[in-house]
Amino acid sequence: MSYLRNTWYVAAMHDELPPGRLLARIYLDEPVVLFRNAAGEPQALADRCPHRFAPLSAGKLCNGGDTVQCGYHGLQFDGKGACTHNPQGDGGIPKAAVVKAYAVRERHGLIWLWAGEAKEADESLIPDYSAVTSAHVDGTIRGYMPTACSAELFVDNILDLTHVDFLHPTTLGSGALSRAKAVVTEPSERSVKIVWVSSGDVAPYAFDINLREQGRPTDQWTEVTWTAPSTMLIRVGATLLGEPREAGVDTLNLHLATPESAGRTHYWYWSTRNFGLTPEANAQATPMVVNVFKLEDKPMLEAQQQRMGTADFWSLKPVLLPGDAGAVRARRKLKALIDAEASAATPTDGAAA
Amino acid sequence: MSYLRNTWYVAAMHDELPPGRLLARIYLDEPVVLFRNAAGEPQALADRCPHRFAPLSAGKLCNGGDTVQCGYHGLQFDGKGACTHNPQGDGGIPKAAVVKAYAVRERHGLIWLWAGEAKEADESLIPDYSAVTSAHVDGTIRGYMPTACSAELFVDNILDLTHVDFLHPTTLGSGALSRAKAVVTEPSERSVKIVWVSSGDVAPYAFDINLREQGRPTDQWTEVTWTAPSTMLIRVGATLLGEPREAGVDTLNLHLATPESAGRTHYWYWSTRNFGLTPEANAQATPMVVNVFKLEDKPMLEAQQQRMGTADFWSLKPVLLPGDAGAVRARRKLKALIDAEASAATPTDGAAA
Amino acid sequence: MSYLRNTWYVAAMHDELPPGRLLARIYLDEPVVLFRNAAGEPQALADRCPHRFAPLSAGKLCNGGDTVQCGYHGLQFDGKGACTHNPQGDGGIPKAAVVKAYAVRERHGLIWLWAGEAKEADESLIPDYSAVTSAHVDGTIRGYMPTACSAELFVDNILDLTHVDFLHPTTLGSGALSRAKAVVTEPSERSVKIVWVSSGDVAPYAFDINLREQGRPTDQWTEVTWTAPSTMLIRVGATLLGEPREAGVDTLNLHLATPESAGRTHYWYWSTRNFGLTPEANAQATPMVVNVFKLEDKPMLEAQQQRMGTADFWSLKPVLLPGDAGAVRARRKLKALIDAEASAATPTDGAAA
Repeated sequence: MSYLRNTWYVAAMHDELPPGRLLARIYLDEPVVLFRNAAGEPQALADRCPHRFAPLSAGKLCNGGDTVQCGYHGLQFDGKGACTHNPQGDGGIPKAAVVKAYAVRERHGLIWLWAGEAKEADESLIPDYSAVTSAHVDGTIRGYMPTACSAELFVDNILDLTHVDFLHPTTLGSGALSRAKAVVTEPSERSVKIVWVSSGDVAPYAFDINLREQGRPTDQWTEVTWTAPSTMLIRVGATLLGEPREAGVDTLNLHLATPESAGRTHYWYWSTRNFGLTPEANAQATPMVVNVFKLEDKPMLEAQQQRMGTADFWSLKPVLLPGDAGAVRARRKLKALIDAEASAATPTDGAAA
Repeated sequence: MSYLRNTWYVAAMHDELPPGRLLARIYLDEPVVLFRNAAGEPQALADRCPHRFAPLSAGKLCNGGDTVQCGYHGLQFDGKGACTHNPQGDGGIPKAAVVKAYAVRERHGLIWLWAGEAKEADESLIPDYSAVTSAHVDGTIRGYMPTACSAELFVDNILDLTHVDFLHPTTLGSGALSRAKAVVTEPSERSVKIVWVSSGDVAPYAFDINLREQGRPTDQWTEVTWTAPSTMLIRVGATLLGEPREAGVDTLNLHLATPESAGRTHYWYWSTRNFGLTPEANAQATPMVVNVFKLEDKPMLEAQQQRMGTADFWSLKPVLLPGDAGAVRARRKLKALIDAEASAATPTDGAAA
Repeated sequence: MSYLRNTWYVAAMHDELPPGRLLARIYLDEPVVLFRNAAGEPQALADRCPHRFAPLSAGKLCNGGDTVQCGYHGLQFDGKGACTHNPQGDGGIPKAAVVKAYAVRERHGLIWLWAGEAKEADESLIPDYSAVTSAHVDGTIRGYMPTACSAELFVDNILDLTHVDFLHPTTLGSGALSRAKAVVTEPSERSVKIVWVSSGDVAPYAFDINLREQGRPTDQWTEVTWTAPSTMLIRVGATLLGEPREAGVDTLNLHLATPESAGRTHYWYWSTRNFGLTPEANAQATPMVVNVFKLEDKPMLEAQQQRMGTADFWSLKPVLLPGDAGAVRARRKLKALIDAEASAATPTDGAAA
């Protein structure tokens, strides 16, 4: 599997990594252990001791988190991957006793991991999702949902939201999205935006029940911005026909996918809204939102991956529909970025001569 | 795995496919969805939407069963595999939006699927098993038993019924079958028959307890007719020594195997008898029959497959015994039919010139 | 996977094979069935009937154990692998109806299997572990622990016992072992011995609590003798500083590993001690010992194997520490023995000419 390397991937939500925890996850086929150092900063190391290949995540944190001790024979490593302690013999530290360290950054509630060389890590490429992650806690529903499909299928899923009409018909779908014409743009070299608007339809159930009056025609908007490699910001809302957006209900949502492997994906959702901002309203809304993701999206995506097997998507000759416009653009853009990395890594004829 | 294609395979018993159900099964490595159209006729499509490869079986039936709607983005297909509805954009139907349709037929309680091109489907090749499937309901015990072995091993199992003496010694075996001399014939180009008869032995337990007197010498008969590719009709019975067959107990049984893959088989048994034709007698006999299949045959066949792994049967150089005569004949006949298909599909030198 | 063939592997502890039992295990990728003949001697056959490839272990013992009957069609084989009975037809025994028989020997509580040709079996190569296996029953804790790692990792684990300081810190580790200097010798062509001694440390908890006084400085000894291919005899003990060994606590332990496959190992532990020789003391000590193996060693070894995948150990370029000296020597010795077998099996240029 070829992945985009010089980019940030979401590794965890901030509170999945409390101080003192060794969090073992696989990203892009590589086992990684995450922990916080004594200053509280997230650290990430290859999760394999260079001595006997035990997972460092099976060890323990020492020095307030500044080092992780292998649980098998006791070598200690700091967050840069350097061996800082060898309990054996004269305590000399073998030169080769080094583990790969990843660049990681915590930004607005998310922990990001750079998949390329740590020294190339470019903080300016971390997307700013603070509008979502700083939203009112009582209007926030979020969770982690690892899923047996590729990250590409998750991106396709979100960039073609016409699926709500069929996969989520009782909550998020009203039929309006399928009939609307999608407008696709490219806000930046690393992003694709797709927008659907409609006028005159009753809003989907989850929105309709929160409008001033129910069962009335509305103006609706759905806007998805994908940023390479696989994070999506979604704005969806509705207002009574002809009224300003501010008078209606609006939601801002993050969907964050990080490949574990070709066929497995770490997935996080972080959904926020501008209404029902009480603990009671949040408690009531949570099962509906979680069930949409866990009981409708997840099984469909896993079934889709299962039917595709390990075949390349294009080799299966998909029949494309209008709703695929954004997803196809994002797939091509990601491929172009990966190809550009590959050719940058290969000396040109001239350079080789 | 190479399968015989221009032939019928059992896909389901009639009542496994009630109206309104989408039944997902894999036959010959191909995912298929079965359903009944508005007229109640069984239909079979490749279980993969050509748009995004979601299983159609995860969708729903529309128009009384005349179409199946993909549960992901809403394309609809009829039982011929034609796309009849596209909810997106102007509703135009892409030319390529077609799924493979299989020829299926319902005959005397069974639903049959043709594994070759639908237009080549030859109804005259469907075996007539009505003598079994129309038998008295209170003398009928039937079920579905998917099993982790090849369909060939199921055929071998039934064509060498001497195994009853060792695998089912307390119910169906008496030792008589192993000692009897098997007579093998070929009733047709696509069938093999093997017959064992014996005189003087006490009948196996399951038969003995249903004779007029117990523990007495009997005449016994066991006749198996295999029809390519993998369905078996079995007649087994016993009568007190010298009495006519009609005075004894007789059973007529179907064993139906359809490959799911090289190592997994759909299996159905349909056992009927000419005695004990009451609900009470049937309820009493059912556990014994079901246990013979599920607790004795199935574990042995799965263990056998496990020991063989993915090796070709003949490559393992089996030591053949007299009881294998029928099974070997059937294996050779099936191979000849498959080879004939392959050479029919390949132009000869002359034709190619 | 290449294994040493002309050597003995532990197949079972004596009481894992009571008379009348068919014990199915895989050794070195080969399915084997073990049983006792009428004289009580252990027998071992390839666990696959040559007729239809059913596992013989799914059959039953006949003639007091002198033959095993296939449970599918009834062929019987004796402990030499010869077919002694065919129930079919005229009862003639096909020439090819033979199964592979392994040489097996029962010695001091263990059943050993020779992995090479039975006629080459050399009883003098069976290690004498009677000092352990004849120890007082109330000072003995033993068990079977199949584990998802290679046998090499088990050998490494035992030959580098410095791991007790980190993996078993509350029971067997005190930190003394890591700091001690290991002395490695080669008592024979097929064995490696590693010895650690220390003076002045408090003994590990499991030893300290059994000394005359607790929390006092001690002399400690740890001696491991590995014998090819994968059995280890361990002596570990402690005595109050300056007192003779006999005045302290001493343990003698067997760790026995036999490859099931490249990634799975049969493992037995047989731990004996010279103190606490009562049923009550044994019952109290048992959970601690078993938990060390099952809750600490086993998960670490399986995690280590999982991180290594199917890669060759040396190809991963392990960073070696002083504690690895014994394990590396044993790995090299085993490899040399395997290479010697391979070249003995290959004609030299001269012989071929």
